[in-house]
Amino acid sequence: MEASLALQDNLPSDNPIRGCFGCGADNAHGLHIKSYFDGNEGVATWRPENHHCSYPGYLNGGIACTLIDCHSASIALAVECRERGLDLSRDSDQLPSAWTRAMSVEFLKPVPLKAALTLKARLVSKGRTSRTVRCSIYADGEECITGEVTVVMTGL
Amino acid sequence: MEASLALQDNLPSDNPIRGCFGCGADNAHGLHIKSYFDGNEGVATWRPENHHCSYPGYLNGGIACTLIDCHSASIALAVECRERGLDLSRDSDQLPSAWTRAMSVEFLKPVPLKAALTLKARLVSKGRTSRTVRCSIYADGEECITGEVTVVMTGL
Repeated sequence: MEASLALQDNLPSDNPIRGCFGCGADNAHGLHIKSYFDGNEGVATWRPENHHCSYPGYLNGGIACTLIDCHSASIALAVECRERGLDLSRDSDQLPSAWTRAMSVEFLKPVPLKAALTLKARLVSKGRTSRTVRCSIYADGEECITGEVTVVMTGL
Repeated sequence: MEASLALQDNLPSDNPIRGCFGCGADNAHGLHIKSYFDGNEGVATWRPENHHCSYPGYLNGGIACTLIDCHSASIALAVECRERGLDLSRDSDQLPSAWTRAMSVEFLKPVPLKAALTLKARLVSKGRTSRTVRCSIYADGEECITGEVTVVMTGL
């Protein structure tokens, strides 16, 4: 990994996405996704709690969508900042916002709730304001869910 | 609406989906989606809490996916039971299970967190074991998010 602080923890304390249910560092009831760069790939690890289930012992699909959505949007934002030479932690007033426009998810295998989950995301295309990110969730190393998220950047 | 009890509240107390984060009546930390039939349409109303946000004042996309996923799967299951003449509350050992195989969601407009949300879902196609449900979320009557969920039924 390239940084000691997660992308989300690096955001200025007044950044509005810090309250987000999925990735906000300051949401007391949130999932607290922590995303890092590993080269061009965005990586996050996450452990479900018991109440994040669907059928007993398996991860809820909506929680999986939240992980994919927020990790992908975080990576899209961070890539944008990297390309523009912006520092997530310092250039507060120049940071764009990332809004998810669409996403699609395939559930390849049920995800055991007790598994260590890893998310891997990568920017795969770029329009004027839109960014498309592919993201998969691995449970104990096995790809179980894969998705694609289209994010629109505002404030560019 | 056709029943006084929501589909989820009608399930037997030992049904395993009662613990689901999105739609389980018995998940203390869950969203407690309550789905009803209105003719062939599945309808649910739901109010976000403050921590269900993305940017301040707007609904988190992953929470929206959870609503769409769980409401759609509940409707697919309930339609199946209706067609087979099964009673959700009584024919416990004959109830199939509904597993989401894929979903796609379009976020048409940001959803204000303070809005009264309505979900409307309808079965649009049926394979041997798969069911496709279209579902939209309306905020104060305006369609803001639309999605399609493919559910696989097991135990048919």
